[in-house]
Amino acid sequence: MQYPEPIAKLIDSFMRLPGVGHKTAIRLAYYVVDMNKDDVKKFSSALNETKDKLMYCSVCGNLTDEDPCVICRDKNRDQSQVLVVEQPKDIMVMEKMKDYHGLYHVLNGVLSPIEGKGPEDLNIKSLIKRLQSNSEIKEVIIATNATPEGEATAMYLSRLIKPAGIKVTRLAHGLSVGSDIEYADEMTLSRAVSGRTEM
Amino acid sequence: MQYPEPIAKLIDSFMRLPGVGHKTAIRLAYYVVDMNKDDVKKFSSALNETKDKLMYCSVCGNLTDEDPCVICRDKNRDQSQVLVVEQPKDIMVMEKMKDYHGLYHVLNGVLSPIEGKGPEDLNIKSLIKRLQSNSEIKEVIIATNATPEGEATAMYLSRLIKPAGIKVTRLAHGLSVGSDIEYADEMTLSRAVSGRTEM
Repeated sequence: MQYPEPIAKLIDSFMRLPGVGHKTAIRLAYYVVDMNKDDVKKFSSALNETKDKLMYCSVCGNLTDEDPCVICRDKNRDQSQVLVVEQPKDIMVMEKMKDYHGLYHVLNGVLSPIEGKGPEDLNIKSLIKRLQSNSEIKEVIIATNATPEGEATAMYLSRLIKPAGIKVTRLAHGLSVGSDIEYADEMTLSRAVSGRTEM
Repeated sequence: MQYPEPIAKLIDSFMRLPGVGHKTAIRLAYYVVDMNKDDVKKFSSALNETKDKLMYCSVCGNLTDEDPCVICRDKNRDQSQVLVVEQPKDIMVMEKMKDYHGLYHVLNGVLSPIEGKGPEDLNIKSLIKRLQSNSEIKEVIIATNATPEGEATAMYLSRLIKPAGIKVTRLAHGLSVGSDIEYADEMTLSRAVSGRTEM
Protein backbone atom coordinates (compact mmCIF):
# COMPACT_ATOMS: atom_id res chain seq x y z
CA MET A 1 0.00 0.00 0.00
CA GLN A 2 1.15 3.49 -0.83
CA TYR A 3 0.81 6.57 1.32
CA PRO A 4 -2.15 8.75 0.29
CA GLU A 5 -0.81 11.01 -2.47
CA PRO A 6 -0.68 14.32 -0.54
CA ILE A 7 1.24 12.66 2.29
CA ALA A 8 3.62 10.92 -0.10
CA LYS A 9 4.40 14.27 -1.73
CA LEU A 10 4.90 15.94 1.61
CA ILE A 11 7.23 13.18 2.81
CA ASP A 12 9.21 13.62 -0.40
CA SER A 13 9.47 17.39 0.16
CA PHE A 14 10.56 17.03 3.78
CA MET A 15 13.24 14.55 2.73
CA ARG A 16 14.83 17.22 0.54
CA LEU A 17 15.69 19.24 3.65
CA PRO A 18 19.15 18.75 5.15
CA GLY A 19 19.31 16.29 8.03
CA VAL A 20 15.82 14.91 7.42
CA GLY A 21 15.74 11.19 6.66
CA HIS A 22 12.83 8.98 5.64
CA LYS A 23 11.53 8.23 9.14
CA THR A 24 11.74 11.87 10.24
CA ALA A 25 9.98 12.97 7.04
CA ILE A 26 7.12 10.54 7.76
CA ARG A 27 6.85 11.83 11.32
CA LEU A 28 6.80 15.46 10.16
CA ALA A 29 4.25 14.78 7.40
CA TYR A 30 1.85 13.09 9.81
CA TYR A 31 2.42 15.93 12.24
CA VAL A 32 1.30 18.39 9.55
CA VAL A 33 -1.91 16.36 9.10
CA ASP A 34 -2.82 17.12 12.70
CA MET A 35 -1.70 20.76 12.60
CA ASN A 36 -4.05 23.71 12.73
CA LYS A 37 -5.14 24.59 9.18
CA ASP A 38 -4.13 28.25 9.58
CA ASP A 39 -0.62 27.29 10.65
CA VAL A 40 -0.22 25.06 7.60
CA LYS A 41 -1.44 27.87 5.31
CA LYS A 42 1.09 30.22 6.94
CA PHE A 43 3.84 27.65 6.48
CA SER A 44 3.01 27.15 2.83
CA SER A 45 2.83 30.87 2.06
CA ALA A 46 6.06 31.53 3.97
CA LEU A 47 7.72 29.00 1.66
CA ASN A 48 6.36 30.73 -1.42
CA GLU A 49 7.20 34.22 -0.17
CA THR A 50 10.77 33.15 0.58
CA LYS A 51 11.15 32.34 -3.08
CA ASP A 52 9.02 35.18 -4.49
CA LYS A 53 9.81 38.19 -2.32
CA LEU A 54 13.44 37.71 -1.32
CA MET A 55 16.27 39.13 -3.41
CA TYR A 56 19.92 39.95 -2.97
CA CYS A 57 20.75 43.56 -2.04
CA SER A 58 22.37 45.20 -5.06
CA VAL A 59 24.88 46.97 -2.81
CA CYS A 60 26.05 44.37 -0.30
CA GLY A 61 24.62 41.05 -1.51
CA ASN A 62 22.59 40.46 1.67
CA LEU A 63 19.21 38.72 1.44
CA THR A 64 16.44 41.28 1.65
CA ASP A 65 12.83 41.97 0.79
CA GLU A 66 13.66 45.57 -0.24
CA ASP A 67 16.58 46.74 -2.34
CA PRO A 68 18.91 48.18 -1.05
CA CYS A 69 18.67 46.26 2.21
CA VAL A 70 17.83 47.78 5.58
CA ILE A 71 21.52 47.95 6.61
CA CYS A 72 22.69 49.68 3.42
CA ARG A 73 19.82 52.19 3.73
CA ASP A 74 20.65 53.03 7.35
CA LYS A 75 22.71 56.23 7.30
CA ASN A 76 23.28 56.03 11.07
CA ARG A 77 25.60 53.06 10.62
CA ASP A 78 29.34 53.60 10.45
CA GLN A 79 29.96 54.11 6.72
CA SER A 80 33.74 53.74 7.09
CA GLN A 81 33.77 49.99 7.85
CA VAL A 82 32.76 47.05 5.66
CA LEU A 83 32.68 43.58 7.19
CA VAL A 84 32.98 40.80 4.62
CA VAL A 85 31.11 37.55 5.33
CA GLU A 86 30.58 34.32 3.43
CA GLN A 87 26.81 33.97 3.76
CA PRO A 88 23.82 36.25 4.40
CA LYS A 89 23.11 34.35 7.62
CA ASP A 90 26.52 35.35 8.97
CA ILE A 91 25.24 38.93 9.03
CA MET A 92 22.48 37.92 11.43
CA VAL A 93 25.03 36.35 13.77
CA MET A 94 27.15 39.51 13.69
CA GLU A 95 24.12 41.70 14.32
CA LYS A 96 23.10 39.61 17.32
CA MET A 97 26.45 40.46 18.91
CA LYS A 98 25.44 44.17 18.77
CA ASP A 99 29.11 45.35 18.88
CA TYR A 100 29.50 46.09 15.19
CA HIS A 101 27.77 49.09 13.61
CA GLY A 102 29.37 49.30 10.19
CA LEU A 103 28.32 47.95 6.80
CA TYR A 104 28.54 44.45 5.33
CA HIS A 105 29.44 42.70 2.13
CA VAL A 106 28.34 39.13 1.37
CA LEU A 107 30.71 37.05 -0.78
CA ASN A 108 28.16 34.28 -1.24
CA GLY A 109 30.72 31.53 -0.75
CA VAL A 110 34.48 31.11 -0.57
CA LEU A 111 37.22 30.34 -3.03
CA SER A 112 37.23 26.57 -3.42
CA PRO A 113 39.22 24.91 -6.20
CA ILE A 114 37.66 21.54 -5.25
CA GLU A 115 34.15 22.87 -5.90
CA GLY A 116 35.41 24.82 -8.89
CA LYS A 117 34.64 28.16 -7.24
CA GLY A 118 36.92 30.96 -8.42
CA PRO A 119 36.94 34.72 -7.69
CA GLU A 120 34.45 35.35 -10.52
CA ASP A 121 31.85 33.16 -8.76
CA LEU A 122 31.90 35.33 -5.63
CA ASN A 123 30.71 38.92 -5.07
CA ILE A 124 34.29 40.19 -5.22
CA LYS A 125 33.94 42.43 -8.26
CA SER A 126 31.05 44.29 -6.60
CA LEU A 127 33.14 44.70 -3.43
CA ILE A 128 36.05 46.24 -5.33
CA LYS A 129 33.70 48.53 -7.25
CA ARG A 130 32.10 49.57 -3.98
CA LEU A 131 35.49 50.41 -2.44
CA GLN A 132 36.54 52.38 -5.52
CA SER A 133 33.34 54.41 -5.77
CA ASN A 134 32.96 55.10 -2.06
CA SER A 135 35.88 56.97 -0.51
CA GLU A 136 34.21 56.93 2.91
CA ILE A 137 35.25 53.28 3.43
CA LYS A 138 38.46 53.17 5.47
CA GLU A 139 38.54 49.58 6.71
CA VAL A 140 37.56 46.16 5.38
CA ILE A 141 37.13 43.53 8.10
CA ILE A 142 37.32 40.03 6.70
CA ALA A 143 35.08 37.61 8.59
CA THR A 144 35.24 34.49 6.45
CA ASN A 145 35.16 31.21 8.39
CA ALA A 146 38.29 29.85 10.05
CA THR A 147 38.50 27.03 7.49
CA PRO A 148 41.31 26.55 4.93
CA GLU A 149 39.00 27.95 2.20
CA GLY A 150 38.00 30.88 4.40
CA GLU A 151 41.65 31.65 5.15
CA ALA A 152 42.63 31.47 1.49
CA THR A 153 39.77 33.77 0.53
CA ALA A 154 40.79 36.24 3.26
CA MET A 155 44.36 36.22 1.97
CA TYR A 156 43.19 36.73 -1.60
CA LEU A 157 40.98 39.69 -0.66
CA SER A 158 43.65 41.26 1.49
CA ARG A 159 46.15 41.23 -1.41
CA LEU A 160 43.51 42.69 -3.69
CA ILE A 161 42.37 45.51 -1.40
CA LYS A 162 45.51 46.61 0.48
CA PRO A 163 47.21 48.24 -2.53
CA ALA A 164 44.29 50.70 -2.71
CA GLY A 165 45.38 52.04 0.67
CA ILE A 166 42.41 50.63 2.57
CA LYS A 167 43.05 48.99 5.94
CA VAL A 168 42.29 45.27 5.83
CA THR A 169 41.73 43.37 9.10
CA ARG A 170 40.76 39.81 9.96
CA LEU A 171 38.73 38.55 12.94
CA ALA A 172 40.98 37.31 15.76
CA HIS A 173 41.58 33.58 16.17
CA GLY A 174 42.17 32.07 19.58
CA LEU A 175 40.51 30.25 22.43
CA SER A 176 36.73 30.32 22.64
CA VAL A 177 35.50 32.22 25.67
CA GLY A 178 34.83 29.78 28.50
CA SER A 179 36.89 27.00 26.92
CA ASP A 180 39.57 24.82 28.53
CA ILE A 181 43.14 24.97 27.23
CA GLU A 182 43.21 21.23 27.88
CA TYR A 183 40.70 20.62 25.10
CA ALA A 184 41.88 23.23 22.58
CA ASP A 185 43.27 21.84 19.31
CA GLU A 186 46.89 22.62 18.40
CA MET A 187 46.03 24.97 15.53
CA THR A 188 43.78 27.10 17.71
CA LEU A 189 46.33 27.12 20.51
CA SER A 190 49.08 28.12 18.10
CA ARG A 191 46.96 31.02 16.83
CA ALA A 192 46.13 32.02 20.41
CA VAL A 193 49.85 32.18 21.28
CA SER A 194 50.90 34.12 18.18
CA GLY A 195 47.97 36.51 18.62
CA ARG A 196 48.57 37.10 22.35
CA THR A 197 47.80 40.58 23.64
CA GLU A 198 49.50 42.67 26.33
CA MET A 199 47.64 42.94 29.63
CA MET B 1 18.37 43.78 12.96
CA GLN B 2 15.48 41.50 12.13
CA TYR B 3 15.44 38.70 9.61
CA PRO B 4 13.82 39.73 6.32
CA GLU B 5 10.09 39.14 6.83
CA PRO B 6 9.67 36.06 4.61
CA ILE B 7 12.57 34.32 6.34
CA ALA B 8 11.31 35.28 9.79
CA LYS B 9 7.92 33.75 8.95
CA LEU B 10 9.53 30.61 7.58
CA ILE B 11 11.72 30.21 10.67
CA ASP B 12 8.61 30.56 12.79
CA SER B 13 6.81 27.88 10.76
CA PHE B 14 9.70 25.44 10.91
CA MET B 15 9.90 25.90 14.68
CA ARG B 16 6.34 24.61 15.02
CA LEU B 17 7.48 21.20 13.79
CA PRO B 18 8.40 18.61 16.43
CA GLY B 19 12.11 18.38 17.20
CA VAL B 20 13.00 21.57 15.34
CA GLY B 21 14.61 24.22 17.54
CA HIS B 22 15.55 27.80 16.72
CA LYS B 23 18.97 27.07 15.21
CA THR B 24 17.68 24.20 13.08
CA ALA B 25 14.78 26.35 11.89
CA ILE B 26 17.21 29.09 10.80
CA ARG B 27 19.33 26.52 8.96
CA LEU B 28 16.29 25.05 7.20
CA ALA B 29 14.90 28.47 6.25
CA TYR B 30 18.19 29.56 4.67
CA TYR B 31 18.36 26.19 2.95
CA VAL B 32 14.96 26.88 1.37
CA VAL B 33 16.30 30.21 0.06
CA ASP B 34 18.85 28.31 -1.99
CA MET B 35 16.46 25.57 -3.09
CA ASN B 36 15.21 25.14 -6.63
CA LYS B 37 12.03 27.23 -7.07
CA ASP B 38 10.02 24.27 -8.41
CA ASP B 39 10.89 22.18 -5.36
CA VAL B 40 9.72 24.95 -3.05
CA LYS B 41 6.44 25.27 -4.98
CA LYS B 42 5.96 21.51 -4.70
CA PHE B 43 6.67 21.64 -0.98
CA SER B 44 4.19 24.45 -0.43
CA SER B 45 1.43 22.80 -2.45
CA ALA B 46 2.05 19.45 -0.74
CA LEU B 47 1.44 21.24 2.57
CA ASN B 48 -1.80 22.73 1.30
CA GLU B 49 -2.99 19.49 -0.27
CA THR B 50 -2.33 17.61 2.95
CA LYS B 51 -4.82 19.90 4.62
CA ASP B 52 -7.27 20.25 1.73
CA LYS B 53 -7.45 16.81 0.13
CA LEU B 54 -6.95 14.42 3.03
CA MET B 55 -9.88 13.09 5.01
CA TYR B 56 -10.62 10.21 7.35
CA CYS B 57 -12.13 7.09 5.79
CA SER B 58 -15.76 6.88 6.92
CA VAL B 59 -15.44 3.11 7.36
CA CYS B 60 -12.11 2.54 9.12
CA GLY B 61 -10.87 6.01 10.11
CA ASN B 62 -7.68 5.77 8.03
CA LEU B 63 -6.29 8.90 6.36
CA THR B 64 -7.20 8.90 2.70
CA ASP B 65 -7.71 11.10 -0.32
CA GLU B 66 -10.77 9.08 -1.41
CA ASP B 67 -13.62 7.85 0.79
CA PRO B 68 -13.79 4.92 1.50
CA CYS B 69 -10.04 4.36 1.57
CA VAL B 70 -8.16 2.08 -0.80
CA ILE B 71 -8.04 -0.76 1.77
CA CYS B 72 -11.76 -0.67 2.56
CA ARG B 73 -12.55 -0.64 -1.18
CA ASP B 74 -10.31 -3.64 -1.91
CA LYS B 75 -12.58 -6.69 -2.04
CA ASN B 76 -9.56 -9.01 -2.43
CA ARG B 77 -8.54 -8.38 1.16
CA ASP B 78 -9.58 -10.82 3.87
CA GLN B 79 -12.92 -9.39 5.03
CA SER B 80 -13.01 -11.60 8.12
CA GLN B 81 -10.22 -9.84 10.04
CA VAL B 82 -10.06 -6.30 11.42
CA LEU B 83 -6.79 -5.09 12.90
CA VAL B 84 -7.23 -2.21 15.33
CA VAL B 85 -4.43 0.41 15.47
CA GLU B 86 -3.95 3.67 17.33
CA GLN B 87 -2.87 5.91 14.44
CA PRO B 88 -3.22 5.98 10.63
CA LYS B 89 0.55 5.73 10.30
CA ASP B 90 0.50 2.38 12.13
CA ILE B 91 -1.39 1.00 9.11
CA MET B 92 1.57 1.88 6.88
CA VAL B 93 3.93 -0.02 9.18
CA MET B 94 1.66 -3.07 9.13
CA GLU B 95 1.34 -2.91 5.34
CA LYS B 96 5.11 -2.77 4.94
CA MET B 97 5.33 -6.12 6.71
CA LYS B 98 3.18 -7.63 3.90
CA ASP B 99 1.97 -10.53 6.12
CA TYR B 100 -1.45 -9.15 6.95
CA HIS B 101 -4.16 -9.02 4.32
CA GLY B 102 -7.26 -8.16 6.33
CA LEU B 103 -8.98 -4.86 7.12
CA TYR B 104 -8.10 -2.12 9.60
CA HIS B 105 -9.74 0.16 12.10
CA VAL B 106 -8.05 3.32 13.40
CA LEU B 107 -8.89 4.34 16.98
CA ASN B 108 -7.22 7.72 16.62
CA GLY B 109 -5.59 7.55 20.03
CA VAL B 110 -5.83 5.48 23.20
CA LEU B 111 -7.76 5.70 26.44
CA SER B 112 -5.82 8.11 28.62
CA PRO B 113 -7.35 9.47 31.83
CA ILE B 114 -4.35 11.83 32.20
CA GLU B 115 -5.08 13.49 28.86
CA GLY B 116 -8.81 13.26 29.53
CA LYS B 117 -9.36 10.84 26.66
CA GLY B 118 -12.31 8.52 27.22
CA PRO B 119 -13.97 5.91 24.98
CA GLU B 120 -16.19 8.58 23.36
CA ASP B 121 -13.06 10.41 22.07
CA LEU B 122 -11.91 7.36 20.10
CA ASN B 123 -13.40 5.65 17.04
CA ILE B 124 -14.84 2.88 19.20
CA LYS B 125 -18.50 3.48 18.45
CA SER B 126 -17.82 3.17 14.71
CA LEU B 127 -15.91 -0.08 15.33
CA ILE B 128 -18.79 -1.62 17.27
CA LYS B 129 -21.27 -0.51 14.61
CA ARG B 130 -19.04 -2.00 11.94
CA LEU B 131 -18.88 -5.35 13.77
CA GLN B 132 -22.65 -5.40 14.28
CA SER B 133 -23.52 -4.56 10.68
CA ASN B 134 -20.93 -6.83 9.06
CA SER B 135 -21.30 -10.49 9.94
CA GLU B 136 -18.29 -11.40 7.79
CA ILE B 137 -15.90 -10.17 10.50
CA LYS B 138 -14.74 -13.14 12.59
CA GLU B 139 -11.65 -11.76 14.34
CA VAL B 140 -10.53 -8.45 15.79
CA ILE B 141 -6.76 -8.18 16.21
CA ILE B 142 -5.81 -5.46 18.67
CA ALA B 143 -2.54 -3.78 17.76
CA THR B 144 -2.41 -0.85 20.16
CA ASN B 145 1.08 0.04 21.41
CA ALA B 146 2.70 -1.93 24.22
CA THR B 147 2.30 1.01 26.61
CA PRO B 148 0.12 1.06 29.76
CA GLU B 149 -2.49 3.13 27.84
CA GLY B 150 -2.32 0.78 24.87
CA GLU B 151 -2.78 -2.24 27.14
CA ALA B 152 -5.72 -0.66 28.94
CA THR B 153 -7.38 0.21 25.63
CA ALA B 154 -6.83 -3.36 24.39
CA MET B 155 -8.42 -4.73 27.56
CA TYR B 156 -11.37 -2.34 27.26
CA LEU B 157 -12.01 -3.29 23.62
CA SER B 158 -11.68 -6.99 24.34
CA ARG B 159 -14.35 -6.81 27.06
CA LEU B 160 -16.61 -4.85 24.73
CA ILE B 161 -16.27 -7.11 21.68
CA LYS B 162 -15.95 -10.65 23.09
CA PRO B 163 -19.59 -10.93 24.29
CA ALA B 164 -20.70 -10.52 20.66
CA GLY B 165 -18.99 -13.85 19.92
CA ILE B 166 -16.18 -12.35 17.87
CA LYS B 167 -12.65 -13.65 18.43
CA VAL B 168 -10.40 -10.97 19.93
CA THR B 169 -6.61 -11.35 19.70
CA ARG B 170 -3.67 -9.17 20.68
CA LEU B 171 -0.23 -8.91 19.00
CA ALA B 172 2.34 -11.09 20.78
CA HIS B 173 4.78 -9.50 23.23
CA GLY B 174 8.27 -10.87 23.64
CA LEU B 175 11.87 -10.45 22.61
CA SER B 176 12.61 -8.38 19.52
CA VAL B 177 14.08 -10.44 16.71
CA GLY B 178 17.86 -10.25 16.84
CA SER B 179 17.93 -8.93 20.41
CA ASP B 180 20.05 -10.18 23.32
CA ILE B 181 18.34 -11.63 26.40
CA GLU B 182 21.07 -9.85 28.38
CA TYR B 183 19.65 -6.47 27.45
CA ALA B 184 15.93 -7.26 27.56
CA ASP B 185 13.96 -5.44 30.27
CA GLU B 186 12.17 -7.51 32.92
CA MET B 187 8.67 -6.74 31.66
CA THR B 188 9.49 -7.90 28.15
CA LEU B 189 11.26 -10.99 29.46
CA SER B 190 8.32 -11.83 31.69
CA ARG B 191 5.94 -11.54 28.69
CA ALA B 192 8.30 -13.66 26.59
CA VAL B 193 8.28 -16.42 29.23
CA SER B 194 4.52 -16.41 29.76
CA GLY B 195 3.92 -16.33 26.01
CA ARG B 196 6.42 -19.12 25.22
CA THR B 197 5.48 -21.42 22.34
CA GLU B 198 6.07 -25.12 21.83
CA MET B 199 8.82 -26.07 19.38
